[in-house]
Amino acid sequence: MSEEEKILKIGVLKNGTIGSSLLLAFLMDERAEAKRIEVLEVTSGAKMHPEICSKTMEKLLELNPELIIMSSPNAALPGPKKAREMVNNIPTIVISDSPAKKAIDEIKEKNMGYILVNCDSMIGARRPFLDPTEMSIFNADLLKVLAITGALQVITEELNKVIIDLLEGRTPTLPQIIVDSNCATEAARFSNAYARVKAIAAFELAASVSKVTGKACFQLKDKSEYMPLLAAAHEMMRTAASLCDEAREIEKSNDTVIRKPHHSKQHILTKIGLFDKEE
Amino acid sequence: MSEEEKILKIGVLKNGTIGSSLLLAFLMDERAEAKRIEVLEVTSGAKMHPEICSKTMEKLLELNPELIIMSSPNAALPGPKKAREMVNNIPTIVISDSPAKKAIDEIKEKNMGYILVNCDSMIGARRPFLDPTEMSIFNADLLKVLAITGALQVITEELNKVIIDLLEGRTPTLPQIIVDSNCATEAARFSNAYARVKAIAAFELAASVSKVTGKACFQLKDKSEYMPLLAAAHEMMRTAASLCDEAREIEKSNDTVIRKPHHSKQHILTKIGLFDKEE
Amino acid sequence: MSEEEKILKIGVLKNGTIGSSLLLAFLMDERAEAKRIEVLEVTSGAKMHPEICSKTMEKLLELNPELIIMSSPNAALPGPKKAREMVNNIPTIVISDSPAKKAIDEIKEKNMGYILVNCDSMIGARRPFLDPTEMSIFNADLLKVLAITGALQVITEELNKVIIDLLEGRTPTLPQIIVDSNCATEAARFSNAYARVKAIAAFELAASVSKVTGKACFQLKDKSEYMPLLAAAHEMMRTAASLCDEAREIEKSNDTVIRKPHHSKQHILTKIGLFDKEE
Amino acid sequence: MSEEEKILKIGVLKNGTIGSSLLLAFLMDERAEAKRIEVLEVTSGAKMHPEICSKTMEKLLELNPELIIMSSPNAALPGPKKAREMVNNIPTIVISDSPAKKAIDEIKEKNMGYILVNCDSMIGARRPFLDPTEMSIFNADLLKVLAITGALQVITEELNKVIIDLLEGRTPTLPQIIVDSNCATEAARFSNAYARVKAIAAFELAASVSKVTGKACFQLKDKSEYMPLLAAAHEMMRTAASLCDEAREIEKSNDTVIRKPHHSKQHILTKIGLFDKEE
Amino acid sequence: MSEEEKILKIGVLKNGTIGSSLLLAFLMDERAEAKRIEVLEVTSGAKMHPEICSKTMEKLLELNPELIIMSSPNAALPGPKKAREMVNNIPTIVISDSPAKKAIDEIKEKNMGYILVNCDSMIGARRPFLDPTEMSIFNADLLKVLAITGALQVITEELNKVIIDLLEGRTPTLPQIIVDSNCATEAARFSNAYARVKAIAAFELAASVSKVTGKACFQLKDKSEYMPLLAAAHEMMRTAASLCDEAREIEKSNDTVIRKPHHSKQHILTKIGLFDKEE
Amino acid sequence: MSEEEKILKIGVLKNGTIGSSLLLAFLMDERAEAKRIEVLEVTSGAKMHPEICSKTMEKLLELNPELIIMSSPNAALPGPKKAREMVNNIPTIVISDSPAKKAIDEIKEKNMGYILVNCDSMIGARRPFLDPTEMSIFNADLLKVLAITGALQVITEELNKVIIDLLEGRTPTLPQIIVDSNCATEAARFSNAYARVKAIAAFELAASVSKVTGKACFQLKDKSEYMPLLAAAHEMMRTAASLCDEAREIEKSNDTVIRKPHHSKQHILTKIGLFDKEE
Repeated sequence: MSEEEKILKIGVLKNGTIGSSLLLAFLMDERAEAKRIEVLEVTSGAKMHPEICSKTMEKLLELNPELIIMSSPNAALPGPKKAREMVNNIPTIVISDSPAKKAIDEIKEKNMGYILVNCDSMIGARRPFLDPTEMSIFNADLLKVLAITGALQVITEELNKVIIDLLEGRTPTLPQIIVDSNCATEAARFSNAYARVKAIAAFELAASVSKVTGKACFQLKDKSEYMPLLAAAHEMMRTAASLCDEAREIEKSNDTVIRKPHHSKQHILTKIGLFDKEE
Repeated sequence: MSEEEKILKIGVLKNGTIGSSLLLAFLMDERAEAKRIEVLEVTSGAKMHPEICSKTMEKLLELNPELIIMSSPNAALPGPKKAREMVNNIPTIVISDSPAKKAIDEIKEKNMGYILVNCDSMIGARRPFLDPTEMSIFNADLLKVLAITGALQVITEELNKVIIDLLEGRTPTLPQIIVDSNCATEAARFSNAYARVKAIAAFELAASVSKVTGKACFQLKDKSEYMPLLAAAHEMMRTAASLCDEAREIEKSNDTVIRKPHHSKQHILTKIGLFDKEE
Repeated sequence: MSEEEKILKIGVLKNGTIGSSLLLAFLMDERAEAKRIEVLEVTSGAKMHPEICSKTMEKLLELNPELIIMSSPNAALPGPKKAREMVNNIPTIVISDSPAKKAIDEIKEKNMGYILVNCDSMIGARRPFLDPTEMSIFNADLLKVLAITGALQVITEELNKVIIDLLEGRTPTLPQIIVDSNCATEAARFSNAYARVKAIAAFELAASVSKVTGKACFQLKDKSEYMPLLAAAHEMMRTAASLCDEAREIEKSNDTVIRKPHHSKQHILTKIGLFDKEE
Repeated sequence: MSEEEKILKIGVLKNGTIGSSLLLAFLMDERAEAKRIEVLEVTSGAKMHPEICSKTMEKLLELNPELIIMSSPNAALPGPKKAREMVNNIPTIVISDSPAKKAIDEIKEKNMGYILVNCDSMIGARRPFLDPTEMSIFNADLLKVLAITGALQVITEELNKVIIDLLEGRTPTLPQIIVDSNCATEAARFSNAYARVKAIAAFELAASVSKVTGKACFQLKDKSEYMPLLAAAHEMMRTAASLCDEAREIEKSNDTVIRKPHHSKQHILTKIGLFDKEE
Repeated sequence: MSEEEKILKIGVLKNGTIGSSLLLAFLMDERAEAKRIEVLEVTSGAKMHPEICSKTMEKLLELNPELIIMSSPNAALPGPKKAREMVNNIPTIVISDSPAKKAIDEIKEKNMGYILVNCDSMIGARRPFLDPTEMSIFNADLLKVLAITGALQVITEELNKVIIDLLEGRTPTLPQIIVDSNCATEAARFSNAYARVKAIAAFELAASVSKVTGKACFQLKDKSEYMPLLAAAHEMMRTAASLCDEAREIEKSNDTVIRKPHHSKQHILTKIGLFDKEE
Repeated sequence: MSEEEKILKIGVLKNGTIGSSLLLAFLMDERAEAKRIEVLEVTSGAKMHPEICSKTMEKLLELNPELIIMSSPNAALPGPKKAREMVNNIPTIVISDSPAKKAIDEIKEKNMGYILVNCDSMIGARRPFLDPTEMSIFNADLLKVLAITGALQVITEELNKVIIDLLEGRTPTLPQIIVDSNCATEAARFSNAYARVKAIAAFELAASVSKVTGKACFQLKDKSEYMPLLAAAHEMMRTAASLCDEAREIEKSNDTVIRKPHHSKQHILTKIGLFDKEE
């Protein structure tokens, strides 16, 4: 029973933002009912240069976390790398996007876990296009894609496995996962085959956004060339969100929306019919 | 010119989450190009009891912020109040939702500013309904509503005024604003009358969600009664998001999507046509 | 068998219009096949001042109805009240909207029944906004909401109970019902949980329209203020209709659209699958 | 000035229902502000056999109308014909649907006017299909089609011309109009060419519904044959309504929704931009 | 086994185009896996005057087809008739649209088969309206209607019966079929009643397009009159395609999309669930 | 004037099918009014092995074409290559898809032109998935994408330049074009920036379909793995078609749908407003 009473201190470091990190703390405690974890975050907003990454990590370490979750775009960049070097022996999981694959070997060497989400594509970040409104809309669409395709479910379940391990005094096996359309939509556990199919299509679509924004942000110089591509990339994400909505509506029409809420003691319950009991 | 070189340290405290705080740091620096501000956040995830609020505020204060932005649901609760009491003389702005109106007098007495967003409605937080996926979808819809109706634009502009004041060495006038459908949609500066009308409808719809979730979360005891209401409330937010999408599509169809990106020196630029230059 | 042959004379009085009264006679005899009732209406169009109400009631009484159904917006106004005072002992049912709740005591004292429909919201009746086309569109949307949420089904069933009672020589128990989202959607008997949920959302949405039109019609004086609200209110009703459409499409997709036609002898039959037999 | 003070008594007779008659009184006085007309209706609900038609006409005549508007499906049937024979010299306008064309000669001989609306198609009136809910939904869709295509605008304008004539002491020229897609959409005065085109498509679609319901109601005997056709016919009307919605959304997107409200003195005002003044 | 090895030479003649002929060869061999048929086509593009029809038929006959499929709009025109006269004793099937019904007697006299598709409506072929883009869009919509309503399934199955007969050395019974909404949607074998209903509605809608394009192309002279009708006709086809999409989405939502692929040995397999095996 | 009277004989060879070839002849003569070209096609249906390609080319050459257009998927395969080797000195243009890029050098060496369309993606051709209905639906969606993004307009204009050159006795410059999203949407000449943006998004989406179908058709062996991908790929194309529809609807809403019909003498006219004159 004493283990029941343990409260796990979880530290979250965010440098820059990706869709998968928007609600990270809430993927572990969606209703503020968790009795056995305490989540504290330190973040550096949009910035992710080495100094700010180490400054925020320093603060986070002062909070004595027993589990660290680090999130940033492209975890292969010097900033996130710098922060990883400060961690030492605390179990750590890196959550990032597709370009972070370049850092996998280094992350493994540090015995850290990672979850890299293929469809967590880069935003169209050029000044004539991206203002706070456009930025928020893109994130709203991306968040819907991540939620419905199952990408956030993968994160939720992997983090929870580690949390349960630590709560129960076991050495955790840290995840080493690249979230692709297959893995995400398996985690989403659609009942209807075509709902899953639509989610796969949305995932692939969202994943291909990065190619367009990458070209528009880094290769093209002429505004008349990059502007339409930036806007097209955001249309693609909007369309992916809309496909996800179709997928979930199918599950609603069959009353098969699976729900997997956390119990206040942190294990995950499951139910399907709206009026079923979660168990 | 020395003022040009000043970098303002902005501290963000988040206890619990509201839609308006999801991307708060990025409303000040949407492309990670801001040269004159540094934003650091400390958050307590889902929890907002007094101990965790003061613990996170303590950490935040150690970072010596020159401007503090505090965000939480219902800022009238003891936790956020506790945190406010620790601030002293640093200019502080409270960002919260409709129930926070009860704290306005106290906030004013402390010479703090506030921005309370009427449509930032409470989620349907009961275990048989709310899991990480449903929670994320609701936030995605809410975020879209906040972005397109102009609510986030109000926050962006009010924060930026204070930031510019502080960068230029002026004593800032802190905002005292309740964001209603009129105020939000004025800030959104729609060109088409019906686009604005749809945004107003979406705002009112989103604002009315709280009544339904409030009843379902706090008054009803019988699962067969609260479950349909919870799900209906989320349908309402989904519908509000969809109305917002209609509004923005109208502006696209007229090439009048206004964009107001930050200059790297922090002032806000404006443009309308997609190929116009921001100025 | 003689009772079989009885034909009940039903008198309908309409002063002003609400959505629930648009097809009132046809809720009792949707295919013009009813052999045991005769429905006669007298109406005063848009007007509902006391003189016109009593004039129309006078005409109606000359037709010797055995059951009277009175319909108007806000049945608490002097006109409808005046008409009620003329009725005497004929069984009478008042059908009205939410503001009519103020008249409930008086209606009860007169031993009349009532059905007040919460989502039968007031139209945006100001001259720069409301012309015959806009008026008709609002009513079309409202009618769809009333039909699909089950509000009209409540009216249909309550009226039919009274009719059957009278046809069979029993003293009828007159209805005393406020139609809210729960009561309406129960009557609609959705098979799919989310279809019902969408109908509840639509009902709540439609019910909240009155607050917006009320403010725009009675409180605001400045055209630039009330015009966007009026248009927003009608967008809300359009959106509610669209949610209802989603709900019914779900039932179609499961072949579970319940149908409850009247038998020509007036009792109500039921069927579910499109090719099922009504029984 | 004395003519200004005249109040015209308008009598409306409805036997059976068509979409065009649902809101007939309100096409003359959409906001209950008309000072110069008084509209009284007598209706026989769903029934339209000769006895009930003459009984209701008798009542209507007792109210001494100066203008009579008669509305029914298929005005060539014996019931409406019987009622027409009772009118004598009061100016009378028949509003009906396409099958009423057979009565045109007789109507003309009686010096009556007529407005026959081609797209006011017959409902799918068979018991296994049509219950009060389905009946109401069909009417909601039909009403939207009539409103947006301009069919109701034709009726509004034609009635108003006669009303003004009578108010100003002139012998009215009664309308002799078959409302087809061209005539309706001209009256609707769309600004955008494709909005009108969609309205024409919707009108043609709605007009073709009668062929399908006619076949299903009168020719086919086998339930397995007529049921799909009935349901298909209602899908067609639903689709026509949806096309109309597209048309109006286009006008909204250009802020060119024309509005033609009645002045309280009965003449028709016009405005286009939402914030324009009606004149 | 020797019959197994036979390869049937099928000749396709196309003069002019209809929707049903766009993918005619692929209705017999959708994945290029057919081992027992060889399909060769000769076509004259848009032209269908007698000279070009006979020239192309001549070429086709040189290829020694054992089965001829002739496709054109209005097969009653002199061109297709001329081509039919050249065929002699080779089994021949005419695929055409509704106006071809005038040629049925003549086709029968020649012992040819025919499949005439009622909803394969004429395009809006006038210069100010129809360019290659509009033409392609119309065909895309039409193709979707033909595919989902089951019209192409009728063609597929009828052709395959004849092919199998010929492969197995039997004298084929050539089809004599007018594809109406009933026959098409039976072939489509929808599992959900309302999916079929929507397909019927789409078929009827598409079939009625010809009346509008016919009037606009042949009767009206004034551009201001025919242009809106042409565009309306194409809106109708777009709407029909959209209804078809709804129908198929319903089947997807129930995982009941029937699939009937050809085996490489030409017989048709069947499956329903996405993960079922075709048999 | 004698050149005016010249009629150019155009031979089209199709082996296998791509979206761009579905209506190839009609891109040159969309209303069957062309007086100066004669288009004859020989096709081999689904098959494209060397024997059938050469057999069909042989037939085509017998028709003495003065311009040859060859169309097939992957023109780098042996079959189309074989056919190209038979052409000799007749001006020839190859129309194919993205994999045909491997054949560019060889095509250039033969002094042929080529138009390779990036978004003309491969269908999901596996037996448990692809039947005639699914095949036709995919082609309908693809055709809509090709038409609205401007891909077909590129083909139309390039072919027409060559045709005009030949009609006027000039040596034609044959096209060497890879149609990407930029080139296509420039040809589509959208007036609204966001309409073009949506078309770009649709093009990119459609272009990425091949990666998914390629993997599903050629790499994956397990049905449970390739089936969801095949279906997802077709969802992607359906979504791309829907985005295109949005783009065209925007142009309709502004009455800026550009139309470029052929004059009967083959030059291309242009108009924008629906009621404008083509010139």
